[in-house]
Amino acid sequence: MADEEVVLLAAKFTRFGERVKLALAEKRIKYDPLLLEMNPVHKQIPVLIHNGKPICESMIIIKYIDEVWNERAPLLPSDPYQRAHARFWADYIDKKIYPNGRMLWTSEGEVKETYTKNLIQSFQTLEKELGNKPFFAGESFGYVDMALIPFYSMFYTYESQGNFSVTVDCPRIVEWAGRCLEKETVSKSISDPQKLHEAIMEMIKK
Amino acid sequence: MADEEVVLLAAKFTRFGERVKLALAEKRIKYDPLLLEMNPVHKQIPVLIHNGKPICESMIIIKYIDEVWNERAPLLPSDPYQRAHARFWADYIDKKIYPNGRMLWTSEGEVKETYTKNLIQSFQTLEKELGNKPFFAGESFGYVDMALIPFYSMFYTYESQGNFSVTVDCPRIVEWAGRCLEKETVSKSISDPQKLHEAIMEMIKK
Repeated sequence: MADEEVVLLAAKFTRFGERVKLALAEKRIKYDPLLLEMNPVHKQIPVLIHNGKPICESMIIIKYIDEVWNERAPLLPSDPYQRAHARFWADYIDKKIYPNGRMLWTSEGEVKETYTKNLIQSFQTLEKELGNKPFFAGESFGYVDMALIPFYSMFYTYESQGNFSVTVDCPRIVEWAGRCLEKETVSKSISDPQKLHEAIMEMIKK
Repeated sequence: MADEEVVLLAAKFTRFGERVKLALAEKRIKYDPLLLEMNPVHKQIPVLIHNGKPICESMIIIKYIDEVWNERAPLLPSDPYQRAHARFWADYIDKKIYPNGRMLWTSEGEVKETYTKNLIQSFQTLEKELGNKPFFAGESFGYVDMALIPFYSMFYTYESQGNFSVTVDCPRIVEWAGRCLEKETVSKSISDPQKLHEAIMEMIKK
């Protein structure tokens, strides 16, 4: 695949951009990163531009990457039932982790307590799905792991804003995150939790 | 594919169950329908049970159907970029049409007006994407058409609750719906708008 032009348009410190960075790293695809400031006007980021054609939405981009660069590191399983299963859990992460987590610093009082509980429960549901497997797909890192691991960088912020401990309430998720972080593709693609926390606090102030 | 057991667990009058019915009709797959009453306890419907294995979430079920029964009526295009494009618009429908539409009978005053405007704008964005093509995928009925057409049955309710006219504000969407309804698989799979409206009004009263 020579003469290919791959550009990733992403904002600094977003979970969704990091997912795509991670998918590109797993597939060893070279690309030009175009970093934008976190800005509500740029709603449609991340965007992958492949030979001039834009693709939006992180999980849609990841499926695209998996289909086009299919000779290395398959991200989705080949069996249709296992694929549907993986898609279901990636979708669960988008519907539960991101929106509940975000409410921890945009709400107060009882509302905040409810969202904190929802977030903990969602992580615990994910722990049940993980079970005793090292990764969601089984023995190796895959699609669901890729959807969830960028949120590891949020754990510190979740804990400080929601007044709970991920380590105490969801120990298996923390162990799983540790395993993921041993992979260089993961550790190089996701934000440092402390720096991300500072960036979020800065954003809240503004 | 003899000796296959396909069961569709769906609620009466839901857009998401009708999508799956439509996908099964397009693929000419025989199945046993298990109809449940509309019930908030059954959050995870529709569910397709294929040889004892459950698959949840309408668009995930449709992808599964397309992958397993791949010898007839392809639902997603074969080109990766066109596939990503179709997934993006199906996702747009789920994020914009369903949640904005629902607010028309669960909110009041200015909030309701905002959601009505959002709904009209979302339909107009879809009209732009449709352009002069007969269907979203081009010449034939496909994945995005399948994601959107069950909402045709809601037009009557949207108009009566939101005080606007789909025909006036989004004439191309109405023309497109007319073309879809000429297909027997469509007309047999989706609810009668009047009956659906009565069911929703009944549900609101309760």
